[in-house]
Amino acid sequence: MPEGSFERMWADLAPVGRHPGTGGYRRYAWTRTDDTLREWFRAEAERRGLDVVPDRAGNLWAWTADPDAAGPGLVVGSHLDSVPDGGAFDGPLGVVSAFAALDDLRARGFTPSRPVGIACFADEEGARFGIACAGSRILTGALAADRARALTDDEGTTMAEALSAAGTDPRLLGRDDDALRRIGAFLELHVEQGRALADGAEAVGVGTSIWPHGRWRLDLRGRADHAGTTRLADRDDPMLGLAAAIQEARSAAERHGAVATIGKLRVRPNGVNAIPSEVTAWLDARGPLDEEVRAVVHEVGRAAGADPVEESWTPTTRFDGALRDRLATLLGTDDRSAPILATGAGHDAGILAAAGIPTAMLFVRNPTGVSHSPAEHAETADCLAGVAALARAIEALT
Amino acid sequence: MPEGSFERMWADLAPVGRHPGTGGYRRYAWTRTDDTLREWFRAEAERRGLDVVPDRAGNLWAWTADPDAAGPGLVVGSHLDSVPDGGAFDGPLGVVSAFAALDDLRARGFTPSRPVGIACFADEEGARFGIACAGSRILTGALAADRARALTDDEGTTMAEALSAAGTDPRLLGRDDDALRRIGAFLELHVEQGRALADGAEAVGVGTSIWPHGRWRLDLRGRADHAGTTRLADRDDPMLGLAAAIQEARSAAERHGAVATIGKLRVRPNGVNAIPSEVTAWLDARGPLDEEVRAVVHEVGRAAGADPVEESWTPTTRFDGALRDRLATLLGTDDRSAPILATGAGHDAGILAAAGIPTAMLFVRNPTGVSHSPAEHAETADCLAGVAALARAIEALT
Repeated sequence: MPEGSFERMWADLAPVGRHPGTGGYRRYAWTRTDDTLREWFRAEAERRGLDVVPDRAGNLWAWTADPDAAGPGLVVGSHLDSVPDGGAFDGPLGVVSAFAALDDLRARGFTPSRPVGIACFADEEGARFGIACAGSRILTGALAADRARALTDDEGTTMAEALSAAGTDPRLLGRDDDALRRIGAFLELHVEQGRALADGAEAVGVGTSIWPHGRWRLDLRGRADHAGTTRLADRDDPMLGLAAAIQEARSAAERHGAVATIGKLRVRPNGVNAIPSEVTAWLDARGPLDEEVRAVVHEVGRAAGADPVEESWTPTTRFDGALRDRLATLLGTDDRSAPILATGAGHDAGILAAAGIPTAMLFVRNPTGVSHSPAEHAETADCLAGVAALARAIEALT
Repeated sequence: MPEGSFERMWADLAPVGRHPGTGGYRRYAWTRTDDTLREWFRAEAERRGLDVVPDRAGNLWAWTADPDAAGPGLVVGSHLDSVPDGGAFDGPLGVVSAFAALDDLRARGFTPSRPVGIACFADEEGARFGIACAGSRILTGALAADRARALTDDEGTTMAEALSAAGTDPRLLGRDDDALRRIGAFLELHVEQGRALADGAEAVGVGTSIWPHGRWRLDLRGRADHAGTTRLADRDDPMLGLAAAIQEARSAAERHGAVATIGKLRVRPNGVNAIPSEVTAWLDARGPLDEEVRAVVHEVGRAAGADPVEESWTPTTRFDGALRDRLATLLGTDDRSAPILATGAGHDAGILAAAGIPTAMLFVRNPTGVSHSPAEHAETADCLAGVAALARAIEALT
């Protein structure tokens, strides 16, 4: 790879959407910050002579050659958006590494025998409209265009309005068979979000599967009233249901060998001296087994006294077995293959895999395992090992 | 009273700051909505030939005669701001009734022998900057000007900035001895926020005292992390402390014969798939006895694993005994005095009473007791009975 190509891109992205107070990133879909990121993607593609083609789902695809003419290509890439106050690596590492890997191959004079695409998926985190992997879900039809357009953010802005404001026609939104046909295989590099690689010798691992996971909304309703003058016996305070939900999320997850999190709340009216009329809590639940995750959600709803409303659900996703084995051998040493790991995090790769596209993932070591946090980190040497692994994979697969 | 005077004012105020979705009022201090309300107050004063004098705390005083020349006056009035999604009555009923009572007296040809002032207190609910009765506290020096100027709202705007934006010079903020000297006595009419009057024959009662009450902030700190990939054992999730705080607020209040409420939360980063780094919860606690309220706060802090930060504290406030008895007799029937009641709600009247000003309150019947809610209500006949009672009180006291 040309000296410093990765580092230059990394430095260019570093300030975009970074909150000076928290040090975390606030890169939400279809905002001005998102627009800056997409401009950056287009500029990097142009610098390399790649054609950028948007699809009907708002994702961007930068191609080395026309996949409609030269046949389906190998796509690498990830996303650029973040959770609220997220880290620098989740998403951007995959996009930056894809460009850097292409630079590496070109510097070595390698010419792929089929088109290579670099993907920039829209709205992977779902931080603004509540549905993770919205770009890939719309692309594959897993999320219907009508439902997507009607999703609202916390300010009441619909996705359709946000798309329009960003200069994208929301009427075009929908499953895009042309874009899907161009993807011969998809390979997503991502920072690891756990510690499976942290204590080992290898900086890069190969993904096997994504746990079943979903998001549920708990609408806890009560009656707004004055905090100073309403007797305890006369109260209908939805905070009590919230407390029960939080505690049950932890204990049910322990019982079922899963993880469950209440990380987002909305309180109405949210006044110090007002008993709330409504508390909305979002439950994120995942685990190795579908039925155990379902049991956790059911038990949290029962404890809270509310029916959990399913906002998204993704069953177990297994990546392509042949591709996985080939990458593990390719990236391993003489006497053993690269580490293989499952993950609790959802990814666009999982959505494409569920749509029948041969898909694999590479994970780059995360020393603390911390993710979705400003403390998320990967050593530069490990990131460069990831670029090298990605370049070898592209070389082998094209 | 001139026919329809009360109803006209009530109808004029009805749309100001009303949220079309919730039906509640969002009238926060030093906003454009607040400015509209203050303009309304000035216009009503002007219509009656009253001079409006602001004080150094942002409160407005409309006088029938110059209290600096004619000696301290009797002040009636209340506030126009609201809690988030509050009701129409809490505050405005006292201001509208004050103007209507003056109309009544004038229509009957009564001329007070000392100045009558109508007060419009600023920022009574503390909905924006977190300190209730900020206007009267600054006026009396109970809230230091430096601390007030530095208070911030949820957007990070300081009170000083908000004052400047509203055209009020924040450098002038502070205790105002001139304004205090003009208040011979203060009488605040308010909608009842409980059901002490609801099942009785009388529409108007007289206040005796305000419970000791305060607000505390619980800063619950954890570590942001990915909701899908972080093992339960590795988590430091501040939501669990919140759940303990909510439950202890209820059970400690029951044990101590008090009321305690967690009605406002702030979660960071507040993402569905992120374990929070920080949860901030505000605790409102009140009760008949200071030490029992203190015990509740201590026990909630212990359960949550955080030291409660006191944002405000008001010990028991007793209204002027002689004034109370005189009003109870005046407003009673031949054979018994008007109902006497204590309240768990703080009021500007309590702040003035604590500063040594002879102060009393009148409460107007609330059929459900609900307050700080769009459902807050008082029947028009009861409101008009309140106006009549206020007029009789002004007549007797001036």
